[in-house]
Amino acid sequence: MSSVASNFSPVPPGGTIGILGGGQLGRMLSLAAARLGLKTHIYSDERDAPAFDVAAAHTHAPYGDQAALAAFARMVDVITFEFENIPSATLSFLAREKPTWPHAQVLASTQDRLAEKNFVSSLGIATARYARADNRGEARAALDEIGAPAIIKTRRLGYDGKGQSRIGDADDLDTALNAIRHAPAILEEMVDFALECSVVAARGAHGSFAAYDPPENAHRDHILRRSEVPSRLAPEQCDQAKAITRRIADALDYVGVLAVEFFVTKDGTLLVNEIAPRVHNSGHWTIEACIVSQFEQHIRAVAGWPLGDPARHSDAVMENLIGAEAEDWKALAAAPGALHLYGKKEIRQGRKMGHVTRLKPLSGRQS
Amino acid sequence: MSSVASNFSPVPPGGTIGILGGGQLGRMLSLAAARLGLKTHIYSDERDAPAFDVAAAHTHAPYGDQAALAAFARMVDVITFEFENIPSATLSFLAREKPTWPHAQVLASTQDRLAEKNFVSSLGIATARYARADNRGEARAALDEIGAPAIIKTRRLGYDGKGQSRIGDADDLDTALNAIRHAPAILEEMVDFALECSVVAARGAHGSFAAYDPPENAHRDHILRRSEVPSRLAPEQCDQAKAITRRIADALDYVGVLAVEFFVTKDGTLLVNEIAPRVHNSGHWTIEACIVSQFEQHIRAVAGWPLGDPARHSDAVMENLIGAEAEDWKALAAAPGALHLYGKKEIRQGRKMGHVTRLKPLSGRQS
Repeated sequence: MSSVASNFSPVPPGGTIGILGGGQLGRMLSLAAARLGLKTHIYSDERDAPAFDVAAAHTHAPYGDQAALAAFARMVDVITFEFENIPSATLSFLAREKPTWPHAQVLASTQDRLAEKNFVSSLGIATARYARADNRGEARAALDEIGAPAIIKTRRLGYDGKGQSRIGDADDLDTALNAIRHAPAILEEMVDFALECSVVAARGAHGSFAAYDPPENAHRDHILRRSEVPSRLAPEQCDQAKAITRRIADALDYVGVLAVEFFVTKDGTLLVNEIAPRVHNSGHWTIEACIVSQFEQHIRAVAGWPLGDPARHSDAVMENLIGAEAEDWKALAAAPGALHLYGKKEIRQGRKMGHVTRLKPLSGRQS
Repeated sequence: MSSVASNFSPVPPGGTIGILGGGQLGRMLSLAAARLGLKTHIYSDERDAPAFDVAAAHTHAPYGDQAALAAFARMVDVITFEFENIPSATLSFLAREKPTWPHAQVLASTQDRLAEKNFVSSLGIATARYARADNRGEARAALDEIGAPAIIKTRRLGYDGKGQSRIGDADDLDTALNAIRHAPAILEEMVDFALECSVVAARGAHGSFAAYDPPENAHRDHILRRSEVPSRLAPEQCDQAKAITRRIADALDYVGVLAVEFFVTKDGTLLVNEIAPRVHNSGHWTIEACIVSQFEQHIRAVAGWPLGDPARHSDAVMENLIGAEAEDWKALAAAPGALHLYGKKEIRQGRKMGHVTRLKPLSGRQS
């Protein structure tokens, strides 16, 4: 793929970063931009989006509203997004008006789980075994090929375990297909992994690359609970995970921060599970443990600034506050650690309301 | 002084902190409040104040506009300020509408350099020798008493060396009085100090207290250039500086962050130079080197939240970017350290445009 990033002139201090999406990731991107003297303009279809409160300007409109999108584009210097389920037509429309990073074609490789797995496989990078399951016949054939236990996932619009169903044995197939409402899907081998980790990394406009050390991640009910650095990965596995991430970022001609989630099998093999074309929950610990956080790194990349040093100065554990856990804010504020609350009006079950990061002195362990 | 802080109910997440003043301190207070899920409303008489860009709401009006102040007070849960030269009538007016911290009477002890020195002396805390110099006769008598070299400072509205003049010998008096336009003044002994340091500390509503380790400060042209922790203070001097700061904060029944600047003489005596009733430039390093920064600590104190741990996890050096130094933002962004730019539209000589903090592993030295 040729570089789409040529003639990339940096956005100077005082300039404005347009951000599609107004959740906690947009909010933390805004805070990071402010530190560099940059303004943000948040575009969200959500009333009272959390990021509106910390942005110089905001637009509340649907993602398909071309008049609102055009007005937004006129008021900003560069455009990015905080969630990957943005309509790709929206991004293509905006890209004709202002530099938009990562570029719209990235979504073609990451919004569809099947296309993503095919893309990763085409680079010779290992994934769990998978097969297309767009209808009952394909799903049956896929299950015959891959075997139970397996997991079936909708190809589009899934996050935090939404649109997924586990198939314990062959008899579960119809239940699973009902659970995902017979949407076009991908069936994947259930990996009996030793651990899960991720690489959060930035790629700059001219191919520069900076990866944070991979945290070890723990999920519950498909939602990230906890990320810890260092992980139990061996140093050479860390290097391998970063190298895989760089190959993916280069192949996408990516500009900005992306996250690659891995399963590590019991024999030590790294399998790519998912690519997130955005800042990522498993990188929140970088706010406290690194001089330049994943959020600042993304702003630097899309604004055409040099990437910062991704080295961490401390070990770290990040724990999410899910749903009602955030009600306990007084006790959380009195406990050790850096408390982050996202300013969401309504506490809902399974909703990410905040997180806490605790630091420890840097251990000798490389990771 | 009786506690003015009784019946202090905490501002919950989603609540709004009203901040008088919209400079870089207000901006960094807003960013810290956002992290805790709190909103800010900035009130400033400056058009395009830097803090407006990161606040949920702002009011642009003079500090004497009672209608604007009343409307502001209605929209916030608690009120604080980022600069000490706020008219005390403004603060008294607001305090009748909403909890206002630190309380208005604090300004009576800190806005007038003579009152401040008298207050500190009344606590039995050492300062440089000083005398009132409200007119030429008093100034002459003061100089006879204290001797040259001395420094004459206007009693009110000085900052960053504005309203000060050095008196090298007795013949310089008239030049010095002209330089400060014959304003009511205080004449102080010129201290031949070994070093300058400061304690940045927070006092909570119920008398809780948390002090950061004192940085060693270097000034040039009366403007802070650099703060470094640890300082060259001995551990017992650090303890003494923190204890003096606590006595001052207790005597003021203070709520919020304050800074006390010290001269340390060659024989090791600590002399209080100045009290700043606000977050302070010499505490900017706490953003990176502590889990809870001075800005978050101030928000916690005025919002009635528990104070955070002021321990630092790393040693740190903070250097200010003054005037044209900030023009070099591309090189600064590529260099090591955490770059902060304040979003000021106009670069002016002597204006604080940003700062850079570099961390080092925690040394064994206590301080």
